Amino acid sequence: MFDPKTIKYLALDADDTLWMNEPIFVSTQDACRAIIGKYLSDPKEMDSKLYEYEKKNLRLFGYGIKGFMLSMIETVVELSNGQVSGTEIQQIIDLGKEMLDHPVHLLETVEKSVKILSEHFVLMVITKGDLFDQENKLARSGIADYFQIVEVVSEKNEVTYRNLLERHNIPAQQFLMVGNSLKSDVLPVLQAGANAIHIPYHTTWELEKVSEHQLADYTYTELGRMSELIDFLGIK
Amino acid sequence: MFDPKTIKYLALDADDTLWMNEPIFVSTQDACRAIIGKYLSDPKEMDSKLYEYEKKNLRLFGYGIKGFMLSMIETVVELSNGQVSGTEIQQIIDLGKEMLDHPVHLLETVEKSVKILSEHFVLMVITKGDLFDQENKLARSGIADYFQIVEVVSEKNEVTYRNLLERHNIPAQQFLMVGNSLKSDVLPVLQAGANAIHIPYHTTWELEKVSEHQLADYTYTELGRMSELIDFLGIK
Repeated sequence: MFDPKTIKYLALDADDTLWMNEPIFVSTQDACRAIIGKYLSDPKEMDSKLYEYEKKNLRLFGYGIKGFMLSMIETVVELSNGQVSGTEIQQIIDLGKEMLDHPVHLLETVEKSVKILSEHFVLMVITKGDLFDQENKLARSGIADYFQIVEVVSEKNEVTYRNLLERHNIPAQQFLMVGNSLKSDVLPVLQAGANAIHIPYHTTWELEKVSEHQLADYTYTELGRMSELIDFLGIK
Repeated sequence: MFDPKTIKYLALDADDTLWMNEPIFVSTQDACRAIIGKYLSDPKEMDSKLYEYEKKNLRLFGYGIKGFMLSMIETVVELSNGQVSGTEIQQIIDLGKEMLDHPVHLLETVEKSVKILSEHFVLMVITKGDLFDQENKLARSGIADYFQIVEVVSEKNEVTYRNLLERHNIPAQQFLMVGNSLKSDVLPVLQAGANAIHIPYHTTWELEKVSEHQLADYTYTELGRMSELIDFLGIK
């Protein structure tokens, strides 16, 4: 367990840590399933096929909504045996556009906590995904000004964090990452010799799940919500 | 005209400056037109409609191939009155995937010049577009190691350049940007008080074009290819 007093740089993940994200994907997936229901023998087959495409396309598309839209379209083309109509495809694209334009809903206690935390730490956002979309969301979030450093990265692994620490001249023991994903925000940070806190979100994307044995060698703290960070870090 | 001796930071654009890019879009557009030819009364109507969608979607999609794929699909759905088949949509997605996987072709004299330039300047890449795709291309280019700073930005305007200079503590008069786009690589750099050189490419995307009067108040140098930079900057 690290000593909270050593922390000078506090980095927060964005999607499902600062603001709601995964539920928007889930409800879009539901809406897509409704549009193409007539081509499905079992509604569940869309979820597994979509997951297959997302996983396969990750190498080419990376993370983000535009890749998700394209994977949805491929899923629908395959499951309908090419019978899906142009009009239905357009409806799916429109669903994706709504996601891109979705209002940014900050999670509970985030706004107040981020303000307080910014008075005690160099506050950073480290988020992965689509550069354009993430910058847009931060700009619309109303909390962008509290962050001194914003990093949108294409993947969050040990090398990513080591490079970030080096680039900003941050000693690993002074760095604390906080996020909802064990795979992206906790495990690779601990592997890089820095500190991490997990604030779970009620729903996790399949591709962000991590097996327990991968975490067995590491210790990290789990908190329930952003405001608990303030007590935990001994700020009054 | 600036004094080449003051330059310490040399930033290069990537697409159509380091490597070929626009021709891949043009040939994909040709292939798409062939797939949906039967729905078109005039082959040219695809180009103007696609341009319309690209321009309209820029606010939501930003730059990059995935947005281009989605704009192509919307174009095809509209021009076919919704009659385009799922199979044809898949063919269009496959064209886009080929673009994402396209080999990186360095432009003439780039490889040799970049090596020499890296021995005399802090060499940077400043490119706009999709983070994941740009990082991928740089990694596959074989010249990534010559660059000390890589910045993928979502837009290249005066504010972008001012922020970059500030973030890296670069005095404007020490900074030279080199690229093929007057709109993205030259005009905003001059507006930010730094220096720019234009190396035109034989084809320019409609949305990168700039009117002459916008440039009337500024002076910049135009060179024919990357290797001419070496003479121009007085390196022996």
